[in-house]
Amino acid sequence: MKNRVGREIPDDILKDKNYKAFETTEIGHPDKQRVAPIVTVTNGDNKVVNSIKEIVEKLVKDGMTISFHHHLREGDQIFNDVMQAIIDLGIKDLTLAPSSLTNVMNDMVVKAIKSGTITNITSSGMRGSLGDAVSHGLLKNPVVFRSHGNRARAIEEGKIKIDVAFLGVPNSDEVGNANGMEGDAAFGSLGYALMDAQYARRVVLLTDNLVPYPNTPASIKQTQVDYVVKVAKVGDPDRIGSGATRFTKDPKELKIAQMVNEVITHSPYFKDGFSFQTGSGGAALAVTRYLRQAMLDNKIKASFALGGITKPTVDLLEEGLVNKIMDVQDFDKGAADSMKNNRKQQEIDASWYADPDNKAAMVDQLDVVILSALEIDTKFNVNVMTGSDGVIRGAIGGHQDAATAKLTIISAPLVRGRIVTVVPDVTTIVTPGDSIDVLVTEVGIAINPKRHDLLETLSNIPGVPVYTIEELQQKAQQIVGKPKALEFTDKTVALIEYRDGSLIDVVKQVKD
Amino acid sequence: MKNRVGREIPDDILKDKNYKAFETTEIGHPDKQRVAPIVTVTNGDNKVVNSIKEIVEKLVKDGMTISFHHHLREGDQIFNDVMQAIIDLGIKDLTLAPSSLTNVMNDMVVKAIKSGTITNITSSGMRGSLGDAVSHGLLKNPVVFRSHGNRARAIEEGKIKIDVAFLGVPNSDEVGNANGMEGDAAFGSLGYALMDAQYARRVVLLTDNLVPYPNTPASIKQTQVDYVVKVAKVGDPDRIGSGATRFTKDPKELKIAQMVNEVITHSPYFKDGFSFQTGSGGAALAVTRYLRQAMLDNKIKASFALGGITKPTVDLLEEGLVNKIMDVQDFDKGAADSMKNNRKQQEIDASWYADPDNKAAMVDQLDVVILSALEIDTKFNVNVMTGSDGVIRGAIGGHQDAATAKLTIISAPLVRGRIVTVVPDVTTIVTPGDSIDVLVTEVGIAINPKRHDLLETLSNIPGVPVYTIEELQQKAQQIVGKPKALEFTDKTVALIEYRDGSLIDVVKQVKD
Repeated sequence: MKNRVGREIPDDILKDKNYKAFETTEIGHPDKQRVAPIVTVTNGDNKVVNSIKEIVEKLVKDGMTISFHHHLREGDQIFNDVMQAIIDLGIKDLTLAPSSLTNVMNDMVVKAIKSGTITNITSSGMRGSLGDAVSHGLLKNPVVFRSHGNRARAIEEGKIKIDVAFLGVPNSDEVGNANGMEGDAAFGSLGYALMDAQYARRVVLLTDNLVPYPNTPASIKQTQVDYVVKVAKVGDPDRIGSGATRFTKDPKELKIAQMVNEVITHSPYFKDGFSFQTGSGGAALAVTRYLRQAMLDNKIKASFALGGITKPTVDLLEEGLVNKIMDVQDFDKGAADSMKNNRKQQEIDASWYADPDNKAAMVDQLDVVILSALEIDTKFNVNVMTGSDGVIRGAIGGHQDAATAKLTIISAPLVRGRIVTVVPDVTTIVTPGDSIDVLVTEVGIAINPKRHDLLETLSNIPGVPVYTIEELQQKAQQIVGKPKALEFTDKTVALIEYRDGSLIDVVKQVKD
Repeated sequence: MKNRVGREIPDDILKDKNYKAFETTEIGHPDKQRVAPIVTVTNGDNKVVNSIKEIVEKLVKDGMTISFHHHLREGDQIFNDVMQAIIDLGIKDLTLAPSSLTNVMNDMVVKAIKSGTITNITSSGMRGSLGDAVSHGLLKNPVVFRSHGNRARAIEEGKIKIDVAFLGVPNSDEVGNANGMEGDAAFGSLGYALMDAQYARRVVLLTDNLVPYPNTPASIKQTQVDYVVKVAKVGDPDRIGSGATRFTKDPKELKIAQMVNEVITHSPYFKDGFSFQTGSGGAALAVTRYLRQAMLDNKIKASFALGGITKPTVDLLEEGLVNKIMDVQDFDKGAADSMKNNRKQQEIDASWYADPDNKAAMVDQLDVVILSALEIDTKFNVNVMTGSDGVIRGAIGGHQDAATAKLTIISAPLVRGRIVTVVPDVTTIVTPGDSIDVLVTEVGIAINPKRHDLLETLSNIPGVPVYTIEELQQKAQQIVGKPKALEFTDKTVALIEYRDGSLIDVVKQVKD
């Protein structure tokens, strides 16, 4: 059947996996029964285990669901060490359910799939050799992609049942009190990992920094932890904060950032006490810089900044331009350090950040968000999952979640080299057009027609031409021509859940 | 049948209420399935309610279980205002399940029992007019008394299912982020209330101090809160910290405190990195003072202090003599203020503090605890629940929980006026003698014979005579004579659970 955004969802998947097809971005007021783990009681005296092999042998059995967090990003050491031990022990048929997968994990996951160790995956995203392998049909069962908020929801409602969570931490005491703020591998907020710590049947901390009892502040608590494994190295601190968080010097990106800033500051939401999420990425950081100036000029202060946090956002907190930072993840060392020192930077878990089935998540209170896109189509549907070749190379992250903001801005160039961004139909729908308000490109903006109010407010900003999205799509096509239609096989390699757990799209195996 | 400490437990209670009789203080390593609440989803925009009557009408129905916390102690205003509204609305057959009941609530509970509004109670304790009324058979069903750790356990395992929790807080934003640290009615740690916030079907905050969103640090989170009620006054701050926390000048109490200190400092546990819980009460505060000097003299520092926290303990933290304070409750303003300002004072919930069915509670890691007693018998069983007249006038509090410490000291005078403390058999067993190590009285100490090691270590302390507990009991009897045996009816008015949920004793209705 076709779902409400026109995507063909195979009937067998709807039936066999008991899925609903995506219908609406409205969550409403359902009653949701949460789940709770079984706890194996201990007085805490014998939690320390000296090797990864020992703990894997003790806890991991064929067919289990195991999880990891991705706060250590490209500096992560834990994932590969644990997975290697699992492969070595010949364990089979695991479901891998990390908060996300970073590039440093790719080759190990491919290896574990090939050895039969991993037969199911749910993640926020994947890239590189792993995305390529999955898109070419390596994994028997389709990957399930979930947003950060949806993963929290799925864990809280028992859709993801984690048997063993392996959580790398930069410090812990011997009974399992830990935080992300101190130690060589400090990465700040433990936001995503807090879900695993609360809900997994077994929680294993891995640390290179055993500290005296009791360790505080305790983001992860001794009451949640079964074992603490002492390892030589949790991660490479220099690569934790690397990646997407540089300031851009690209004139196109700067132009987009400037226009994003104009859209924000001319919107009705730019007033004292407003809130925003900018995320990482060159353009986003540039937006933060422009926004700072606009806030100073207009004597406007923000009530909170949300999401993955970067140093420029922390600077706004220090400057008093932002009153609170609600921090689910830190993208650089500056942001991580700040959480340690500034009590106004509150660590929040993924549920508080974005679970739609909640008594209010932070994203529900968000005014302005700037999000990226690999593709956006004339229905404002956004793809952040598959490339122009149809291959998986992205992550939902908080995209669907933060798009619930009052003003959701997609910041994207019309084209990237020979690759078109604004298209008639995105390859994969991740975030439905219903939740997107404005597209900002280097040539001008397009406003979602359903936002009549914004059409009026944003139509006469000097230097910000307004187009229909069809016009922007045409402009893009004029630059790079009409791309050849992609060819896929019938095999479904991935399911894209909307944040409420319904199916918004599927990804098919690419044809070589 | 008689349980392992020789108490007659009525068969119908064991059977009808599906109870086990108390067997052992050992908890072992059972697997325990926890429960989770149903969540009614909202985006948080409409949580503020303007009157208690409105919220009671909306949420409270006949037969429900409602809860409150007792952090505001004798200054609490919330309990009486909410209960009055419930009585006025004619609601019947409620189970009252607060973390404890303070004297300021007594008359209202009696009124609610008489009106048929409350027909069941579970609490840590009760005193005054309420204890008197219950002991005289006013309530149809027996009260269930649980320790703080046991209440946490019972909530986590679904034995207490709270339908609506009414939680007074000194600050909250409109979406329900709150802490106990700021505002006129600030009381510090929200430790007991955190259980209700996490597990109740509906969570209602009541505050006289609505603050801008988002309020941090958020001990209670917006994800847990259904409604926020604006009230004129949460409590009387001058009476929150009042009560038991004065320094004693009583020579008998000072003598006991001095001997307690000698016992601690001569024990094998008094070494660098030791931990302790002293609690409140005149003698306990005096112990802290002596202990401070002993720590200075011996250059010994404590790793943590635990439990209900007082200003003298906070002073040790400031002085560097204690490395961390693990804070489930604050007994005075000094302690509450300190939690706001000193990150080494960690707020902990009741589960982390003392739930026996845990992956380690703080009490499991405790070296030394000083506890009080209304009575202690020659089997070292302790009564902190019923008076010498058999009437309920006490609370389990953390007594059973903290008694799991490596060195559990009961500090109590031999007699109080004409009332004997050391008796052949306590009226009500709350904490089994198995978990008590040393009794300290003003004439000397008695060591539990099962602690051969301590018999040796503590036998030659100058100025600390050692007696058998039978000798102390005889000495007490010589002073005040043999008390007349109490007379009770056959009606069971209260059940005393051990911390694991088994029945350690029952309280019978007193005969007039």
